[in-house]
This record gives sequence, C-alpha cells and structure tokens, in this order.
Amino acid sequence: MNPIKVIVAGPRGKMGSEALRMIEKDQSFELVACIDRKNDGVKVKDIEGLPSLDARIYTDAENCLASVEADVLVDLTTPENGYKHTKLAIENKIRPVVGTTGFTEEQLDELSALCKEREIGCVIAPNFAVGAVLMMQFSKWAAKHFPDVEIIEKHHDQKLDAPSGTAIKTAQLIKEEREAHKQGHQDEDETIEGARGAEFDGMRIHSMRLPGLVAHQEVIFGGLGQTLTIKHDSINRESFMSGVKLASERVMDLDVLVYGLEHLLD
Amino acid sequence: MNPIKVIVAGPRGKMGSEALRMIEKDQSFELVACIDRKNDGVKVKDIEGLPSLDARIYTDAENCLASVEADVLVDLTTPENGYKHTKLAIENKIRPVVGTTGFTEEQLDELSALCKEREIGCVIAPNFAVGAVLMMQFSKWAAKHFPDVEIIEKHHDQKLDAPSGTAIKTAQLIKEEREAHKQGHQDEDETIEGARGAEFDGMRIHSMRLPGLVAHQEVIFGGLGQTLTIKHDSINRESFMSGVKLASERVMDLDVLVYGLEHLLD
Amino acid sequence: MNPIKVIVAGPRGKMGSEALRMIEKDQSFELVACIDRKNDGVKVKDIEGLPSLDARIYTDAENCLASVEADVLVDLTTPENGYKHTKLAIENKIRPVVGTTGFTEEQLDELSALCKEREIGCVIAPNFAVGAVLMMQFSKWAAKHFPDVEIIEKHHDQKLDAPSGTAIKTAQLIKEEREAHKQGHQDEDETIEGARGAEFDGMRIHSMRLPGLVAHQEVIFGGLGQTLTIKHDSINRESFMSGVKLASERVMDLDVLVYGLEHLLD
Amino acid sequence: MNPIKVIVAGPRGKMGSEALRMIEKDQSFELVACIDRKNDGVKVKDIEGLPSLDARIYTDAENCLASVEADVLVDLTTPENGYKHTKLAIENKIRPVVGTTGFTEEQLDELSALCKEREIGCVIAPNFAVGAVLMMQFSKWAAKHFPDVEIIEKHHDQKLDAPSGTAIKTAQLIKEEREAHKQGHQDEDETIEGARGAEFDGMRIHSMRLPGLVAHQEVIFGGLGQTLTIKHDSINRESFMSGVKLASERVMDLDVLVYGLEHLLD
Repeated sequence: MNPIKVIVAGPRGKMGSEALRMIEKDQSFELVACIDRKNDGVKVKDIEGLPSLDARIYTDAENCLASVEADVLVDLTTPENGYKHTKLAIENKIRPVVGTTGFTEEQLDELSALCKEREIGCVIAPNFAVGAVLMMQFSKWAAKHFPDVEIIEKHHDQKLDAPSGTAIKTAQLIKEEREAHKQGHQDEDETIEGARGAEFDGMRIHSMRLPGLVAHQEVIFGGLGQTLTIKHDSINRESFMSGVKLASERVMDLDVLVYGLEHLLD
Repeated sequence: MNPIKVIVAGPRGKMGSEALRMIEKDQSFELVACIDRKNDGVKVKDIEGLPSLDARIYTDAENCLASVEADVLVDLTTPENGYKHTKLAIENKIRPVVGTTGFTEEQLDELSALCKEREIGCVIAPNFAVGAVLMMQFSKWAAKHFPDVEIIEKHHDQKLDAPSGTAIKTAQLIKEEREAHKQGHQDEDETIEGARGAEFDGMRIHSMRLPGLVAHQEVIFGGLGQTLTIKHDSINRESFMSGVKLASERVMDLDVLVYGLEHLLD
Repeated sequence: MNPIKVIVAGPRGKMGSEALRMIEKDQSFELVACIDRKNDGVKVKDIEGLPSLDARIYTDAENCLASVEADVLVDLTTPENGYKHTKLAIENKIRPVVGTTGFTEEQLDELSALCKEREIGCVIAPNFAVGAVLMMQFSKWAAKHFPDVEIIEKHHDQKLDAPSGTAIKTAQLIKEEREAHKQGHQDEDETIEGARGAEFDGMRIHSMRLPGLVAHQEVIFGGLGQTLTIKHDSINRESFMSGVKLASERVMDLDVLVYGLEHLLD
Repeated sequence: MNPIKVIVAGPRGKMGSEALRMIEKDQSFELVACIDRKNDGVKVKDIEGLPSLDARIYTDAENCLASVEADVLVDLTTPENGYKHTKLAIENKIRPVVGTTGFTEEQLDELSALCKEREIGCVIAPNFAVGAVLMMQFSKWAAKHFPDVEIIEKHHDQKLDAPSGTAIKTAQLIKEEREAHKQGHQDEDETIEGARGAEFDGMRIHSMRLPGLVAHQEVIFGGLGQTLTIKHDSINRESFMSGVKLASERVMDLDVLVYGLEHLLD
C-alpha cells in the first residue's frame, strides 16, 4: 500500500514537532510539505530540532494546499489559522485532521456543509489522546449503572487551572447519563473548607498538584459493595500521536466531517 | 407501579440470603415464595439468619412454580437444580433470572428455544457484579486500540486457584479483539522464574494473594506515552445484588433468553 | 508460656466485641472477666452476638478489678469510664490498654505519674490500626525529604465529617517536619470552588465519599521526577485488633505509660 | 554561605549530564571542573548538549584532582574509573560522592580505611533516588508488623531483566526482618504457570512490562482487615538528582565513608 501523503501545519509547535517525529518513524505516512509562518522554502531537516525529513516548508498556506499533491492535512496550529487551513484543504480535496478546541458552532456547521458538498472526510478533535477519550467514553457508560461518582485529577504543580479541562469534560458526559443528585451524607460537614472538592451537578472533582506528576485522572464509581475505577496516566506528548495517526488513517475512508475522536473508536 | 413478585430458589445460600436482604429493602420487589430442600411450609422469617419476610418455603419446586402467582424466579442454586427450575418456571410463565456458570451449550439452546416458543424473557448470568461485567466490556473495547495489556488480580489468601476465573474471562475477551503477540522485550530474562506472571495469548496475568484483600482486579493497557487502567474492587457479596436487581427488572420486558449480564448494560 | 489474663471493658461495643473474638481465637490470651453496664454475673457466651467464652460480666468495675486476678485490662469504653477504669486497674496492678482519643493532658499526666509510682505499664492509643499508625510515621519521615505533599482520604458515604480525623492527624505530623509553604502554582485558579481541596499549613487534603468504599487514605509526596505514595486500606474493624494484641503483649514488659501505638512499633 | 565547589566525573553520561543541569540551576553548588575521556581543556558550554557552564574538562583525573580547588567530586562513571577517582579524591582532600553498585567489599574496606585515616567524608550509593530508598526503608520497617507481603514492579517494555534490581533489593531487606514462610493458601493451584509470580523467601514478586510505563514499584503488606502499600513512581532521571544533591551537602560534614543513601535519610 502506498503511504499516506501528509502536510503538517505548525511543525515547530510542541504537537507539530511530535507529529513530524511520528511520521518519520511510521512507514505508512510520507511528509510532503509543511505550513509555517517562517522559513519559506527551507527543508524540514535544516531546521534545528526537527527530524531529518526532506519536505519543504511553505509560508503561503493557499499556495501549499493548491500546489502540493497530498492526502491529508494535519493541522496543529491556532483556531484562527486552523479554520482557514481547513477550508482551503477541503476545497483542494485534501482531508483535514485538526487538533483544536477553539472552533465555534458556526464554523463547525460551515465546514461540515463544505465536506458534505465536496464528499470529503475531515476529523476535528479537541483531544487526540486515545486513552483519555476512551476513559471519558467508559465513564459515560458506567454512569448509567453507577450514579455515584467522583473524579480525581493529578497534574504537575505548574498547571494554573483547577479542575482540568478533561475532568470537566468527563463530568459533563457523566451528567448527560444520570439524574443530578447531591452525593455523600446529606448532613456532611466540611471541618476544613474545600475538603469535599469542587461540586459539579452533585458529583465531586478533586485536583491534586505536585512536582513529579505529569497528567493523570481517575474516575471512581461507587455502588453497594463495589467500586469501579477508570484511570488514565499520560507521561508525555507521545500519547497524542496514536490519535493523530488513527485520525489520519480513518479520514481517508470518510466523506463527512467527524467532530471528536470518540466517533472513530468503536 | 406494582412491585415485581419474586420467588427465590436457594434462600439459605450465600447469594440467596443476600438476595432476600435486597428484596426486603427494595420497595420495587415482593417476595412471594422460596424454593429450598428443607423447611417446607415454614415462613422465611422463622428461619434463623434470614430476613423478616412472610413468604413461605416450598420443598416441591414443581408445586411452587405451578401454584404461586409470580413474575420472576431468582435461582441461586446449583446448575442441576437451576436447570430444572428454569424449565419449570418458563412453562409456568414465570421469568427466570439465574446465576450460574454451569449450564451446557445444549441446555442453553433448549432453554432459549423454550423461551422463544412461550415468548417469555429469561436472564442467565455467570457474573452478577455489574462493575466486574463493565470492567470486562471496557477491556474488550480498549484492546482494539491498546494491544499491549497485563492483568493483575488480587484476592484474600484463602483463594485456591490462580489466576481467578474473572481474570481468565477478561483475557479471553481481550484475545477476541487483538492479534496475539508476545509482549515485553523479545529477549527478556526472568532471573527468578514466574516473575513475568502467567502467559495467556501473549499477555500476562499476575495473581496476588494476601490477608486483608477481598476481590480486586486491574486491567492495564499500555501505549506510547500513556496507560489506561480499568479496576474493579469488590468488598462483599452485596456487589452482586445490583446485577440481580437489574436482571429482575429488565427480564420483565424481554421475550427471549439473554446469556450474560453485559447484554443488559448498554 | 501461660496465656495473658485479660479483662475486657465494653464487651458489647463494636470494638469490644471484636476484641472478644480476637481473644477467642488467640491461644496467647485468656478472657477472665468483662466490665459492662448490665448483665452482672452473666457469662459472655450467654449474651447474644458474643463469642462462646465462659468469663463472667461485672457491672461493678471496682469490684471486678480488685477481685479478679488479671494481667491486662483492655478498655474500649468511653473516655469517662476509661479514665476511671484505668486508675482502678493501675491501683490493682493490672496493666491497662486503652483505646481512646478523649483523655485530657491533665488526666494523662496523672495516669503517667501513677504508673511511674507503681512501676506498672500502661498503653493508651487513639488508633489501634497498626497499618494506619505506620502510614502516619512513614509520612512524618518522608516529609523531611519531600516537602510537597497532598492527602486523599476515601470513605463510605455515610461518614459525616470531612476531612477524616486520620487525615488531619497525618497532616499535623507532616507539619512538624517541614516548613509551611503554599503548594501548587502561585497563581493557580480554581474555576470551580473547592477543586484544590482543604488547605492545611499549605498542603492539601481531599475527601472522597462513595458507597462501596470503607476507609482508605493515600499520602502522596512529590519531588523532581518522582512521587512516593503511602496508602492504607481498611475493610473492617479486624484491622484494629492487631494493635490491641500488640499493645496487650508489650504492656507486660513496660513500667511506664506509653501514649500512642507508634512508640511500640520500632 | 559559599557554594560547594564540585568536580563532576562523567559529564556526558546520562546521570552526569543530569548532574550538570542540577548544578546549573542550584545556587548552592559551583562547577569547578569535569573529568572526561576526551575534550581536554574544552569548556563544558562548548560541548553540544551540555549546559552553559564555564568549567573546563580534564582528561587527566590525577592532574584535575591535584590542581583544582574543590570540595566534592561527584563521580558518575564506571566502577573501574570510579574506584580510581575516589582514591585520588580522598588523597587530595576532596570528598567523593559516587553512584555505583560495582565496588567490591575489599575496595569498600580500603576506601573506608583511607577516609578514616584522612578524616574525610565520602558517600557511595547504589541508588540516588530518595523516594526509592525511602520505599525500601519503610518496607523493612513495615515487614516487622506485616509478615505477608507481595511486590509488584512495573517498567517499560524495553527492560530486559525481571524482577528489577530494586524489587530484589526490597525483598532482601524484608527478608532480614521477618521469618520466611510460604504465603497464600497452602494448597493453592496455579492453573496457568507463573500466575503467582516469582518466589523469594516465601514472598511473591510480580513484574509488569508495558509501553507507557517508566519505573514503578508497589510493596503491598496484608494483615487482618487491612493492607498497607508503599509505592514509588519515577518518570525520569531527575529523580536521582535530589539524592546527589543531598549527598553532596551532607558529605561536607562527614569524616567517614557512608555506603547507601539510607544512612543520610534519618
């Protein structure tokens, strides 16, 4: 089988450079170009810190997507650029795989209509970590049978926000599946404020921050005589690449826009 | 809504007595009779150790199932008696909910045909712990995306067999979803025999036995930069009752035989 | 070796009845009497729910401790009765082993002086779970080298107070060993109040409450590139009996009052 | 206070380069020279991949240790070179901090005598991860009170040997504190060989190998109604640097040779 020809937008970013390393190691992909703000015409391998790949960098996205023969655009830039690149890619029959949480409903509707019209696949995903996405799907399922649940997420102590975005997203998915109810004893008493964590629709979320941690989450369901725990531990950005790979392969067989990696994980 | 009228077979067993306690507390069920080898005609509440319920005990299962008006038979006896009771129940339009691993393929086929003919529901389940069944289903799903997996099960030190039945069942489900492959380093070296655990289709199962443990299992999936863990902890037999309850409710709407609680957990 | 002759005060309580079951199974102990508010003169085995032991019950503690030949008094009553019994026991050369958190500094000083005067051992312990006491000691030690730490304690959802007494006690011990400092990012932001848990001297305590849990605590220390976790799981009251046994044996060789099981765990 | 003047031997190794990064960030240390096999006279900052430090590299260890004014030698080379460097350092009144498992008893005795004669401190440690060393010390302590214990160690799937060196070392320390006894049910039956793990003095060790893991170990002690778990998770080599730092500070106040970081962790 021929390798899938990929253009990567955002090659010097944390996610983008990781994507290049993934493509470098994986025979089923071939890098054909990059889109970046600088280094027009330079080869990837001549940029410090990037892998030894021959593809050239384009600063003009429109030119790149119109002139380079490619199957897939992997876009790991900003929501603004991502939106422009995605539109251009679809118009040029190149399937976009986009990692972003920033698109508006309107933009998604427009891109979805465009995909349908051109009969071309597109994957837009807020989270490419397959393990994290499965954790959320399992949690959604478990909540049907175990309405009592708490979440504990653990991150390095340089993280600013608590709870994490993944914890809140997980809680939202659980909320859809169960009736809201205050958990714990009805008369429970916090002798130190905050002990019982953040309340979200009656369930509780706890955020731990310590040096030596990376990104971890446990969703714990309790029932009579038993608990069921779903846990995801991520130790580096490599964890996202399995999702980028999966989306890049599956997008080849799609003819619609799919939002969220979970729809590719059946 | 009227409570569901239940006959319990095996009321003095560990599972049966737990089922009686569940029925006693739950307004949606009403105990109408028990089937047991002794104490014919005695009320449940007059048997030491059983809950304060008025239903009478029958030693003649045929008579009981023919004469008592009931919706559901909860059978927690042996495979031999369970098979006989299940047949009698179906013939008397009482829906069976049976906890056993011991039925043969032939018996299951026969009972299934009988249910179809009479258009009556029946649930037969080797495991009624909802959390354990979900753990197995999640593991089956995760294995599609994470082919590298190990299982560690932990039990009290009075358990005879290792690995546990649940661990082996989990491994079988995982096996169905992935290509067999030897895990770990190809040249790995056990400097003390057994360190890498039991091999099953290339994956590894570890069995821990200690006082202070009850029944616990972790299924750990590893991928690049991440691990996904599914864990079930059971601390007593109450954990089975949520499954008995669920099956007893759902069997009212079935008109076929369902084997395995997983088919009721969508 | 002769068994240690024990009087148990509070035989019908949760802890007291567990102590009787421990003595029944353990050849190194012999129950010689019980002190209780009722059932004067009745044998233990004639009280429903208590083990089959021949020792008699006394409602008059003074009479019991003066007339029965015994080595050790195991007192599992209230602080008020416990204080009286302890004094009487010391005066009668019976070594007290007392489970309570309720004695005042003054009472402890008085009892300590009395022990010294009579050259008799006495153990008073707020917590008899050897595993929990070791967890606290290890935490105290670890805090010298890992000043960043969070505690998560998990209990059944019938528990009223949060954080648990053990969590607070653990935090106090850690506080003694490290300089107070605000943990986490200096500008961290709780987008839902309470996410970061209860603050205690700069460290954080999280309280989880779910059905299916019993009594669990994890103390997690974070440092560069590593975490060290100390975890205690208790599934029933049997966990306290190893401490009662240890104290009853060790008190035989003491000639002073020892407060806290940790001093017997070197 | 003046910074401690350090010579690092082995600056291009995995541990050595990590030590340079630690020194670069830490005001309490000053790098005064390096000992390496090549790059004589070159500054550290001119070697690719090393931090921006001005100290020069010496290929002649003897010359370096005799001519450079230094407080401490941090040696992270091989046992052969480490032994030579340590001797030379002591003779030049520079305190050695050496990370190795490879010294013979004879070499240690000789170096110990030399330290005593010169009244100079020296620290030799097989393991500089403070968390791992504490885990082992806590395990040794816990084993006195919980004779039933199992170890599970988890590593990435490129590791060759099972069980890990740390697991075996932990088991040896536990062995010193308890009477050997076969754990688990006396008639337990492995239906798949290896399920119960590696046997070591009656206890069991389990080795898990998966992608996405780094270096983890849990020591689980079981008693009546409770378990006590001590867990260490290491995610990168930074975890060793806290031990190198501690040893480099403490060696300044020593006048003997200390073998093993545990003796500095009271």
